[in-house]
Amino acid sequence: MDDERSTAANAQLALLLEVSGTPKPGNVDREREYDDLRFEHFMAGAVGARDGLELATEGTPVGRAFERAVAGMSQQRGGNTQFGALLLVTPLVAAATQGHLSRQGARNVVANTTVDDAVNFYRAFDHVDVAVDDPPTGMEPLDVRQGSDAEPALRDRDMTLEDVMEASATEDGIAAEWTDGFGRTFEAAHGLTQSNGPVTNRASALFLALLASEVDTFVVTQHDAETALEVRDRAQAVLDGDEDPYELAAEFIERDINPGTTADIVAGALFIALERGLSV
Amino acid sequence: MDDERSTAANAQLALLLEVSGTPKPGNVDREREYDDLRFEHFMAGAVGARDGLELATEGTPVGRAFERAVAGMSQQRGGNTQFGALLLVTPLVAAATQGHLSRQGARNVVANTTVDDAVNFYRAFDHVDVAVDDPPTGMEPLDVRQGSDAEPALRDRDMTLEDVMEASATEDGIAAEWTDGFGRTFEAAHGLTQSNGPVTNRASALFLALLASEVDTFVVTQHDAETALEVRDRAQAVLDGDEDPYELAAEFIERDINPGTTADIVAGALFIALERGLSV
Repeated sequence: MDDERSTAANAQLALLLEVSGTPKPGNVDREREYDDLRFEHFMAGAVGARDGLELATEGTPVGRAFERAVAGMSQQRGGNTQFGALLLVTPLVAAATQGHLSRQGARNVVANTTVDDAVNFYRAFDHVDVAVDDPPTGMEPLDVRQGSDAEPALRDRDMTLEDVMEASATEDGIAAEWTDGFGRTFEAAHGLTQSNGPVTNRASALFLALLASEVDTFVVTQHDAETALEVRDRAQAVLDGDEDPYELAAEFIERDINPGTTADIVAGALFIALERGLSV
Repeated sequence: MDDERSTAANAQLALLLEVSGTPKPGNVDREREYDDLRFEHFMAGAVGARDGLELATEGTPVGRAFERAVAGMSQQRGGNTQFGALLLVTPLVAAATQGHLSRQGARNVVANTTVDDAVNFYRAFDHVDVAVDDPPTGMEPLDVRQGSDAEPALRDRDMTLEDVMEASATEDGIAAEWTDGFGRTFEAAHGLTQSNGPVTNRASALFLALLASEVDTFVVTQHDAETALEVRDRAQAVLDGDEDPYELAAEFIERDINPGTTADIVAGALFIALERGLSV
């Protein structure tokens, strides 16, 4: 048995390091939590996800591995802790397992997804409530909240998981990564490997930089576009030294503003960086 | 695949919840860390230990499973994060796997240890520096810091891992648990299952209660008996409302006082409680 961390272990560690970064305005971190969504739920979520992540390293198709990771992640009382992070990390784990943890390698994983992967992706929504927008008119049969009930519609339309992601890439930051070779995630990983200091500090600094660079689509879903623009601009104000990150974190928690998509990209970037030798 | 957390997953989660409890005067927790021993090192330690813990659930002898867990745990830059916790948890994982997570079940695991288990226990010291006392005169060949070099002496004297633990039970709180059917650990687990609220809060409250009840043997090793007595009495003062736990935590961190044995017992108690259905 090799003592080095396996690919699945690096993916699990990425989830744990992501939530350990602080301050991360609006999200649960080591020093901030909600009464019903606590730091301990993220610990249990990362523990439960491990077996599904292992499957992704053993050649199980990404849809199934993701569904299993979500099933394990959801075995805690906080609800959705790492759904988006697992959606981002699972194809990267598959790419790493295939020996091609690169944008092209990730594109190949996405291109090779099947209708079964799409069915399993929908099935994952059976395990946990995820905040999503209502679908456009006529698309109700493909509302992800249908969960496994969407299977006939997916098979009728012959939709692969790549097709599903393309359909929501404009509204969802994770789907956008899926359809763009995970460009923001790889770029963020490069930033992590180039920086210094405690990894959790690098993760929280990356979170702020990403938050200031693009609108967080989860905030759009959870609140509205105006709130998401405000979040982006105030993250920039922190970077400019015009706002205190701790005060902003307290305010966002108070207003229930959770830039979850940005956190998911940090988790994906941490995974890539760990695979590339980032030391903890 | 069952969605419920496996026994190995519960053991890993116990390690993560233990370090997430705060305040825990003197030890690393979510809000306190040392420059060279940080929260992230405990995350990586718990991730790395998982494969060894899995081995313990697959019938691998406890000495070997422990050595593998320590090898994985040590794949981070902080040094010894969870050596003692793994030493306490591994036989409990074995007992749980055998369907007898009870004091008698744990006693049976201990009684069935072999010389090979002792050799693997010593081998674990090859992976990480652990603070220990000098051995008594004449016992130098069995100094744990000999690591795998102690194998001939162990085999000459036909010492099982139970024998090794009995030899240090008076000075080491973990060894004392091994030779006493893990009495404090099981009692602490009972307390956890009877209390309410966030699990990490219950863990930190348990830590303080245990710290006030007995001298922490790691503090004796690291400092001296007088310091350990002071630690015990000041934990009692916190329970009595005469000291502020946060100020005490800051002072102990400043003085480099780490009641590690007490933290290890909390980890063991969390594992037992999780196996018995404690919800996170």
